[in-house]
This record gives sequence, C-alpha cells and structure tokens, in this order.
Amino acid sequence: EDDVYFGSYGHFSIHQEMLKDKVRTLSYRDAMYNNKECFKDKVVLDIGCGTGILSMFAATCGAKLVIGVDQSDIIYQAMDIVRENGFDDRVKLLKGRMEDVDLPVEKVDVIVSEWMGYFLLFESMLDTVLWARDHYLKEDGLLLPNACDVQLSLLADSDLHAAQCGYWDNVYGFSMKCMRKCVVREASVAIVKAANIISEPCIVKDLDLLTCKIKDLEFTSPFKLTCSRSGKITAIVGHFDMGFTQCPSNVKFSTSAKDTPTHWKQSVFLLENPLEMKEGEELSGEIVCKKNRKDPRSLMISLSFRNQIINYLMQ
Amino acid sequence: EDDVYFGSYGHFSIHQEMLKDKVRTLSYRDAMYNNKECFKDKVVLDIGCGTGILSMFAATCGAKLVIGVDQSDIIYQAMDIVRENGFDDRVKLLKGRMEDVDLPVEKVDVIVSEWMGYFLLFESMLDTVLWARDHYLKEDGLLLPNACDVQLSLLADSDLHAAQCGYWDNVYGFSMKCMRKCVVREASVAIVKAANIISEPCIVKDLDLLTCKIKDLEFTSPFKLTCSRSGKITAIVGHFDMGFTQCPSNVKFSTSAKDTPTHWKQSVFLLENPLEMKEGEELSGEIVCKKNRKDPRSLMISLSFRNQIINYLMQ
Repeated sequence: EDDVYFGSYGHFSIHQEMLKDKVRTLSYRDAMYNNKECFKDKVVLDIGCGTGILSMFAATCGAKLVIGVDQSDIIYQAMDIVRENGFDDRVKLLKGRMEDVDLPVEKVDVIVSEWMGYFLLFESMLDTVLWARDHYLKEDGLLLPNACDVQLSLLADSDLHAAQCGYWDNVYGFSMKCMRKCVVREASVAIVKAANIISEPCIVKDLDLLTCKIKDLEFTSPFKLTCSRSGKITAIVGHFDMGFTQCPSNVKFSTSAKDTPTHWKQSVFLLENPLEMKEGEELSGEIVCKKNRKDPRSLMISLSFRNQIINYLMQ
Repeated sequence: EDDVYFGSYGHFSIHQEMLKDKVRTLSYRDAMYNNKECFKDKVVLDIGCGTGILSMFAATCGAKLVIGVDQSDIIYQAMDIVRENGFDDRVKLLKGRMEDVDLPVEKVDVIVSEWMGYFLLFESMLDTVLWARDHYLKEDGLLLPNACDVQLSLLADSDLHAAQCGYWDNVYGFSMKCMRKCVVREASVAIVKAANIISEPCIVKDLDLLTCKIKDLEFTSPFKLTCSRSGKITAIVGHFDMGFTQCPSNVKFSTSAKDTPTHWKQSVFLLENPLEMKEGEELSGEIVCKKNRKDPRSLMISLSFRNQIINYLMQ
C-alpha cells in the first residue's frame, strides 16, 4: 500500500533547479513573449515538457494547441499545473517516449524544447528533437532554439588544479598519485572564474538545428586557442551558446564563464600536467566528441595537442 | 577500442568528497591510531574499502593482514595505492560483493567499514556489514564503528521553507502549487543552520552494531520534541551520531547541525504547513522508517503527529 503514497515521482528538486535558472527559462520566455505573432493560432510541440512551463508560455502567446510530451512521471504534475492555470483546453500532455506517442495532429508549426545537457550534448536528448523535427515539423516551421555552438577556452587556475590533481599527492600521509589520472579523465562540471580564462573562445561545433543530422552530433574539429597572457594552462574549458533567431526578435544566451552562471556551469577538461604558455602563443589541436556506445547518455571527448591525446569521459 | 581508455571507472569525485570530509576520515583514523594496540598483529576486514584509506590506517597500526573488499572498479585504484605505499604485503584487496568473495581466512579480529548513508540508513550498506559480522567476526571481535543512533530535531527556517514550498506559488506568473506536495515528500539533504534548530534532539533509533539484526534497521519509534523558543516549525530534521567505543580511547562524531558539517549534511523533512509552537510546547509523534521494496537503497520515512501522517521518500 505504500506504493500508493510514494510511487516513483522522480527528483523534483531537479525541476526546481532548472526553473530557477533564469538565463535558461527567461530566454525561452523572451523568445516566445517577444514574438507572440509567431505563435498565434499555431500548433506547438514541447519535447520533454517537464513541469509544462514552456507549454504554458506558448499557450500564453496564443497558440491554438500545445502538445507537451515527457516520459517522466513529472508529466502528471504538469497535467495538474496546466489545469490549475486554465490551459487545459489548449495544452495536451502525453506521457511516453517522443518516438512512441500518438500525436493528435500530423504536423506542427513549432517545436520548442529545452534539451541541452552539460557540454551541450550530454544526455543526447537532441537526437529525439531531431527525430521529431523530421517527423512532425512543417516545412518552414519554427524550432526553438534553432542554433547552437560549442566553444573551448584556455583556463589558468592553479587552485582548481591543486584541489583536483595535487590533492592526491598526500592524502592523510599516503600517496594516491594514481588517482590523478582517473580524476583528470572525468570531465567535471563547475563554475569557472572568468578572470582565469586566458584566451578568446574557439568554436568547435556550430549546429543549425533546422538542418543538422544525428550523425553531426558526433564530431571531430580542429581548435586554435591564443593565450591572452602568460600563465600555466591547467584546463581546457567548454561551454555552449544558444540562439532563437527564426523570429523577428532574436534571443541568445551563453553558458560561458564570462556570462551569468547557469545550471549547466562550464565543462572542465583538466590537464594533469599544466602547460606553460606565453602571451600570444597558440595552442592548436583537435577535439573528438562521441557518444559512449556502452551508455549513449554519456560522452567521450578526446583532446589532442602537442603530441598528446587526453581522453575524457562525461558521465 | 575506446573502452580500453574509458572503461567504467566510476565517479572519482565522490571518493574525493568522502576523503576530504575530515570529520569522517579523521574519526576513523583516530579510532585506529589512538588504539594501535587493538590492531597490532590482528586480521582486519575493511568492507567497501574504496580507495583503501581505512585499510592503510589499519596496516599502519600494525595489523598482520588487512582484507579490503569493494565491488566497485575503484578497487583497481586501491590496488595501485596500496602498492605505491608499500602495503601490498599486508593489505589484500578483493573485488566483488562481500557475500560472494572468498576470504583467505575463516574469521577476522576486526571489521572496519564506512557504510553510513544519508539519514544513516540510506543505501542500506549496513545490511552487508551485519552479514559479514555474523559470518566472519570472531567472538569478542572489534567492529568500527560499533554504535550509532538517529536523532530528530525541530527546525524553524522560513527562508528554506519559502525556497522549497513557497516558490511554487508563483513561477514566472504561473501557479505550480501542486508541486509543493511532491517537493515536501522528497526528503532533502542540506546543511541546516544550527541557529534555526529550536529543540533538543530526540533519539529515535539507537543501534548496538555488535548485536543488532537486519530487521532492526526498519523501525517504528515514538518521538517527543520540546520547543526551546516560540516559532514556526517548518521541518523536522534528522541526523546521526557514530561511536567507536570498544577500544580504550573512544572516538565519537555527530552529523548534527550544531557540529562541523560533513558530507552527510542533515536530512530535512519539510512540513508543507508550518506548525506554530510556543516555547516549552511539546510535539509528540511517531516515526516509521522502512526500506522501499521497489528500490532497497531508498528509504520510506513516515512522520505522524497531531492527527496527520506525512510520508517521505529518500531516494
């Protein structure tokens, strides 16, 4: 009988964390509220609707029908929320995998989705959005967001390096040096101090979400980073930028260290051996980003430069 | 071929977080280093040895043989660490479930294990320790820790309540009030301000780890909490205390809000509707703590008082 009380209602705090991320949520809201004419009387599909916030934004803009899809139990709460706010005539919520649910329409005018993971592609929810785009989005339909890129920068942060690598040299009097390699290989997600970023960012992936294919989400790209002041490079840092640029009033946001922190923070690829670089010196290399076959939600990222290859896992 | 590089080496940052928790790690170290005579020439079993830190403490105290068991891949790092520190003649590490591995001895003199989860019992690793105690510990053997208890206190923290419950009343202009009930039901783990604890703690479970049974880990207990100053009770807070008291020099630590924070923090059982209480007023009730049959790692906790029952899930 306890199951009646408890069920499996997921971790609600995650939804609160996402909602409270104003950079994220207000970007979606602005992209809709500042372009109401793009949504008026349209059919909108919200993929991974969660608590239904984006569906309600779309309904508020005058959408004729909003279809929210989510496979998590959170959708039962979204049903209550949509009803409580008087949108149940226009917002229809479907529980299930996007690829499995039966939509009440053949095509939609707009797809909105907040699918981004750490380093943009962690968790691979974009695959589902692209699938839905190909199956349901009308020609010349709107996709929110419709553009994104992934960027790398140089980080010089000896304190972070000491905390993550140096720590293992003396742990309560014992050497755990072998842990350095393991810790380095796990890409970490952290808010990096902008003052410690010592290069302009380099775009390593630019995605037009209206045309890209699932195979584009695994990529190999060159990068070239120019050191803006002499220092010890302790990590390469990744972030992503998003664009909502199909409607007249464009909205963009960035998850870079120089912008307001978001719940995505930045992705940190530590260098076990820091690299001394001089102002104006260039670091050229290549990044490979692939899904982990054993766990398609996780990413395998390799950075190669100066005759070394460092493999990272984001899991 | 990528699997060669990546494998499944777990999340190393968790091990670092545990090691860095000095209240935790130094308590184990003190319990051994201050009682070296209890470990000299003994056979020690370390259950869930992780990076091997407790095994090395035991070896440093003069143990003849330390057997570390862990089913996680972290044990491969522990093997390196033990070798690097010159303990490989005395510390033997076995990968596998405690219940499955073949120990090289019939009985051990000492069992040491850091098995505690949030609210003490989350993750249920104590079951395994009790199993090992019954199968491997010599009569009059040592168990570290050998005693623990779970305590509840009253919390008056309107800010925390507003952040977790009030938040849902107006989310970007929409009402998500139905989320309050869901959020409340998820016990949260947070560092609570000691100044907001307004009662003495009440012990609801006292475990003698040398004699208790697995069935004792699910319990129903009364509690009585006396309000130390008038205020709005917004949550009941849980914490646990540990004791290493079989050796001459006793060591104890507490995870209460009034002590140095640990990685276990405190467990917060929010009250959706805060309770006005006056100084000296008593709150009597009952706590039920059970494993979730669907996921034995998670806990189902019910608090009943003043004609209401609130069910919480810790997952």
